[in-house]
Amino acid sequence: MGMWIGRGRKARRSYGFDEIALVPGNLTVNPNDVDINCEIGSIKLSIPIMAAAMDGVVDPKLAIEMSKLGGIAVMNLEGIQTRYEEPESILADISKSTPEEATKLVQGIYNKPIKEDLIVRRIKEIKKAGALCAVSSIPKRAERFGKLAEEAGADMFVVQSTVISIKHISSEYETVDFTQLCKNMKIPVIIGNCVTYSMAIELMATGAAGIFVGIGPGAACTTRGVLGIGVPQVTATCDCAAARDFYYKQTGRYVSIITDGGMSLGGDIAKAFACGADAVMIGSALARAKEAPGGGFHWGMATPHANLPRGTRIKVGTTSSLKQILVGPADLDDGSQNLAGALKTSMGNLGARNIKEMQLTDIIIAPSIKTEGKVFQVAQKIGMGK
Amino acid sequence: MGMWIGRGRKARRSYGFDEIALVPGNLTVNPNDVDINCEIGSIKLSIPIMAAAMDGVVDPKLAIEMSKLGGIAVMNLEGIQTRYEEPESILADISKSTPEEATKLVQGIYNKPIKEDLIVRRIKEIKKAGALCAVSSIPKRAERFGKLAEEAGADMFVVQSTVISIKHISSEYETVDFTQLCKNMKIPVIIGNCVTYSMAIELMATGAAGIFVGIGPGAACTTRGVLGIGVPQVTATCDCAAARDFYYKQTGRYVSIITDGGMSLGGDIAKAFACGADAVMIGSALARAKEAPGGGFHWGMATPHANLPRGTRIKVGTTSSLKQILVGPADLDDGSQNLAGALKTSMGNLGARNIKEMQLTDIIIAPSIKTEGKVFQVAQKIGMGK
Amino acid sequence: MGMWIGRGRKARRSYGFDEIALVPGNLTVNPNDVDINCEIGSIKLSIPIMAAAMDGVVDPKLAIEMSKLGGIAVMNLEGIQTRYEEPESILADISKSTPEEATKLVQGIYNKPIKEDLIVRRIKEIKKAGALCAVSSIPKRAERFGKLAEEAGADMFVVQSTVISIKHISSEYETVDFTQLCKNMKIPVIIGNCVTYSMAIELMATGAAGIFVGIGPGAACTTRGVLGIGVPQVTATCDCAAARDFYYKQTGRYVSIITDGGMSLGGDIAKAFACGADAVMIGSALARAKEAPGGGFHWGMATPHANLPRGTRIKVGTTSSLKQILVGPADLDDGSQNLAGALKTSMGNLGARNIKEMQLTDIIIAPSIKTEGKVFQVAQKIGMGK
Amino acid sequence: MGMWIGRGRKARRSYGFDEIALVPGNLTVNPNDVDINCEIGSIKLSIPIMAAAMDGVVDPKLAIEMSKLGGIAVMNLEGIQTRYEEPESILADISKSTPEEATKLVQGIYNKPIKEDLIVRRIKEIKKAGALCAVSSIPKRAERFGKLAEEAGADMFVVQSTVISIKHISSEYETVDFTQLCKNMKIPVIIGNCVTYSMAIELMATGAAGIFVGIGPGAACTTRGVLGIGVPQVTATCDCAAARDFYYKQTGRYVSIITDGGMSLGGDIAKAFACGADAVMIGSALARAKEAPGGGFHWGMATPHANLPRGTRIKVGTTSSLKQILVGPADLDDGSQNLAGALKTSMGNLGARNIKEMQLTDIIIAPSIKTEGKVFQVAQKIGMGK
Repeated sequence: MGMWIGRGRKARRSYGFDEIALVPGNLTVNPNDVDINCEIGSIKLSIPIMAAAMDGVVDPKLAIEMSKLGGIAVMNLEGIQTRYEEPESILADISKSTPEEATKLVQGIYNKPIKEDLIVRRIKEIKKAGALCAVSSIPKRAERFGKLAEEAGADMFVVQSTVISIKHISSEYETVDFTQLCKNMKIPVIIGNCVTYSMAIELMATGAAGIFVGIGPGAACTTRGVLGIGVPQVTATCDCAAARDFYYKQTGRYVSIITDGGMSLGGDIAKAFACGADAVMIGSALARAKEAPGGGFHWGMATPHANLPRGTRIKVGTTSSLKQILVGPADLDDGSQNLAGALKTSMGNLGARNIKEMQLTDIIIAPSIKTEGKVFQVAQKIGMGK
Repeated sequence: MGMWIGRGRKARRSYGFDEIALVPGNLTVNPNDVDINCEIGSIKLSIPIMAAAMDGVVDPKLAIEMSKLGGIAVMNLEGIQTRYEEPESILADISKSTPEEATKLVQGIYNKPIKEDLIVRRIKEIKKAGALCAVSSIPKRAERFGKLAEEAGADMFVVQSTVISIKHISSEYETVDFTQLCKNMKIPVIIGNCVTYSMAIELMATGAAGIFVGIGPGAACTTRGVLGIGVPQVTATCDCAAARDFYYKQTGRYVSIITDGGMSLGGDIAKAFACGADAVMIGSALARAKEAPGGGFHWGMATPHANLPRGTRIKVGTTSSLKQILVGPADLDDGSQNLAGALKTSMGNLGARNIKEMQLTDIIIAPSIKTEGKVFQVAQKIGMGK
Repeated sequence: MGMWIGRGRKARRSYGFDEIALVPGNLTVNPNDVDINCEIGSIKLSIPIMAAAMDGVVDPKLAIEMSKLGGIAVMNLEGIQTRYEEPESILADISKSTPEEATKLVQGIYNKPIKEDLIVRRIKEIKKAGALCAVSSIPKRAERFGKLAEEAGADMFVVQSTVISIKHISSEYETVDFTQLCKNMKIPVIIGNCVTYSMAIELMATGAAGIFVGIGPGAACTTRGVLGIGVPQVTATCDCAAARDFYYKQTGRYVSIITDGGMSLGGDIAKAFACGADAVMIGSALARAKEAPGGGFHWGMATPHANLPRGTRIKVGTTSSLKQILVGPADLDDGSQNLAGALKTSMGNLGARNIKEMQLTDIIIAPSIKTEGKVFQVAQKIGMGK
Repeated sequence: MGMWIGRGRKARRSYGFDEIALVPGNLTVNPNDVDINCEIGSIKLSIPIMAAAMDGVVDPKLAIEMSKLGGIAVMNLEGIQTRYEEPESILADISKSTPEEATKLVQGIYNKPIKEDLIVRRIKEIKKAGALCAVSSIPKRAERFGKLAEEAGADMFVVQSTVISIKHISSEYETVDFTQLCKNMKIPVIIGNCVTYSMAIELMATGAAGIFVGIGPGAACTTRGVLGIGVPQVTATCDCAAARDFYYKQTGRYVSIITDGGMSLGGDIAKAFACGADAVMIGSALARAKEAPGGGFHWGMATPHANLPRGTRIKVGTTSSLKQILVGPADLDDGSQNLAGALKTSMGNLGARNIKEMQLTDIIIAPSIKTEGKVFQVAQKIGMGK
């Protein structure tokens, strides 16, 4: 396994969503008879989709709506919601700023301190509405914020960094003990992100209820461009799903694999499940919802190094309600709406009655690029070629 | 066979038309001595091309012209022709609507009920002109409409859905028995679409005279983008042709393989035959004919799920008569006209005297993309680069 | 050798110029000490480049200049030069016509009959200037025109069709006997085009002094788009060079391999020699010369089928003198000028002192496409993306 | 090892930065605890980055600033700085000229003779500021200029040509003896460029302290386009690093591998180290610094052949201070700023505490191109498609 990339140096070929396609079998199922329920620890979802912990995507209002529709949203405990009493005006400032002002503005906004009472207040806002509440922090603050979140009534706690590890070397601060953290929490803890079989095994061994899969998934990803780090999601998901199955055989405990990142269309989500995912986490696709706090924008906080920039604002536009994006009806036919319906239709056509069957779908490597004609047409359109 | 895409997970590499090319042998044939006749069940065609069952492509008028030229057109029994007494005005509305109005308009049009007397009337219009008449329905209505079509004088009956199967699970309706259907019909029944060897074998065993090959053939295909499903046409056609040859050896019955979708130029059609096709079905290439009812537009009804959109209108433009597109003379040199002539010339250069010989052509995997220069030129044209 | 493209169907992977690069060894040579002389039959050239038999590229004037510079130009005996007493005005009409008028105009021009006295006159014009004279015809007219050309003093006779074969089946006309043709001619005969080892062997056995290699070399090539036929030039050249070496071992006769088509830059030409070519034939790169009769345009006559179009005019522009294109000095740094100088510099860097050494250069498969950044920039330029 | 590209002809597959990605292990390190020091011969750098010997990038002022920040800049001894008493006005002429004038202007500027007293003066300007001083010449002038440079106080001497070799054949001039050169110089000598294992071994054997790796690294590179020559940097760096490790085992002398060219973003630099580089040399990324003498432009002198053009001016724009580009803080999030910070963050995420550990990072082959969507969007933007 692996190809020679240079003398004495081998590398394994990895695959992304664009390079594969799903192959129908000899059975089909009426989409209305397809079951897409999933469980992450003790949490049951009727739609196996999580909303990413981004300030432009999740606020209490969206979290409530997401839960009503059957999914779950993760609220960032280190973002605008917990730094500002009135986040609405801050969010409005971001969406109204010019592209030139935006980066600086966003960077400044996150310099305000986090207020612990706001953590409690936001969680209670969500719980008061009877919705499922998931919240997230970075590893460094996981112990403190995890405790606070649990006490405030949160249903799920997420610990996320670009690249997670159990063994972290630092001369400046102490490293979190994930095993202790999971033991101390009564609500399910989900940890990420990882991309390899062996890291997935280590994370499961901490007692996590689920793990996030996805680091620098695409060639256009900042993590891959700036840091050179990344594994395409097909390979990462298959590897971590294999770790889950092995860990389940060894221990009898089933840990959910949640593919996070790199999925923009319904087809990508279907492929993630076919690769072995139990659920998916999406961000920019949901940032386009009317309910999304970003007002048609989102911005990441991917790189934690103090001097590398964070906060570039991305315009995604607002297309429709969260409901339309998740369960339709779809106005657009590009696969960006009715994600649950598309998943059911895909599963029906593939003969998968539920997520577990979908994980066994036959996959084919299919050429992803047919730009020739298109580029040629572009060339002609702008007056080139003959 | 297959490559590792992740731990414990293998996938087979598939190929599309863009990735292959045909290799001349040591013999050439004068194109005028090349024979491209084909038979599908009892139907003989002098041009092995079928027009796809799309409302923007086939109406009785086009079906009559298609038959005259030596091919056959499939009329959709669930479209505008069978829902409206006067389809012309409806079609005119579609072609005159703005891009913004079009999707909604198209969706509304298909909410009108199908009238069975119109099914009979349209078939009789075609037969009255002495033309071959092929008509199509989805599986659910195949028994009822097949009977009606046969009684009205149709020559061929097509049952098509995005992904066909013999075993369909539904709690809401009963599944059609294809074997019974083929037994009950005296005219040839063609079923599709499928892409695998084993599904092709199952479909042939029902008694079908032909099967359609093609699901999500291209990376730009909606089925692949929205549902993640698809197999590129080179591999799909080769696999189903292998099934046909095996089935023929076992039973002595020759079932036609009709490659459907993903062919836009003469070269693609030549490649489909080299891969083993007995005939091809094309849509958008014919939508450009003056006779096409869509007036330079076509629209698909690919996804049957109620909440996923259907009806996006695609502009293809009107370039010439159906005759020019099929048998020339060609005004354009891009391979979109004189498809039969291009096929004969290709076969002559490859030394194939007929379709059966063409199916044995040497195929090479050839890099499909040479965008570098073009993209670079585009970049320069719009004032970038040095 | 070969990969599975479908059940029971294998195809060999072929390579084009864009996919390879040349690897320096442990020796370098001062470019001024590099020798690029070549011999084709009895003809000695100091620059191993032939100008393609296209009416927009070669007329007597360009042929004279080409010979002076050390190369050789092939004049088409079935083009404007032999159909019109005063070709200049016809050529001016073509270059002055609008894009809309051009195709029809070009098609009409070639309906005029060929005049045998003009064949003689054009050849004499070239010979009077003391230049090397090569002329070409299609197979059907090779016997008659070959004899005429030889009598008029031509130095080389070229027989070319898109796909050549020794065994041609036609009920309408008799097939040319190439062995007899070569035997009857005293001047060297070059035949093409072919792309395979076995066809190359057959052509050499006729007694030809050289063979042209190149059928549908690029993905953008009409032959590949319209007919589906083609083999990328790296593989085609390597295969035919292997046939030459085998034939030479068997017979002691060295037949020149002339790579024709698919080379646009100096680097492509260097690669052709590294793949085993003895000479190259180029068209559009020379159509950009001030001396080229096309006035910045060229047009092909690729497809002989009566109903498939011929004559599409391509604008290449006029950049400089033929001298600058062939031997410099170069004003442009894109590899389109000083082709001989680029070849010498390439050979010097690769440590090849002459063409025979260049044919042994180490070749690497190198990723050809780095469009990502460029496309991204294009996207940004026209106001897309963030 | 190697794939058949034609009959009897094998070629090895090589890889570029775009095709690989780095895979995290089970350890992470706080970036502040990462050590990126490097040594090249006797020279110690706290940032393992060299500024390329280009006139638009390096003058004494930039060299001083580069040294202050922890890297080292190479000043071209055959450029504007040593031909003109007052290079500032010449540089201003270049940056103010129109694109049309630029090439001719640049070509003319390099026709002025080199003044040896200016070589001494420029080196002294750099040394007076207490900065590290590296200077470069082509092989032909290495003996003379090396001696001058050493006497004037330079700390490092670079000998560079597009393709270097120990054995150079020339009837016009004598070849430099690199072994003698290295023996005669007391300061470290760095030689390049090379791309293969065997050439790297030969260069190390001359006594060089370091070697530059990089010839025609990218598909868009002039060397590859014009001459056909090149090896992508991943394979070239891995191969030369393997040569270094072998040479070190044999001799106990550690020769630095400096990857030169093809790196535009932080991620590319991280990958170069993961492939085995000890340091990297960059040009255009630094040409964007306010301190760069080119004023937002740079121009190469890649091809030494007299008649092939040199001097095309490339616009890169001016984005920020050299300090921001090298050590941040970054305003842009595209990986073009804070290169040292990005390297430390990448290494921390990959669990590499220093360059030697980074050289052992797990590498994956990851699809580099996801143009489909982008090209499609471009197409739509300019009004194409549906």
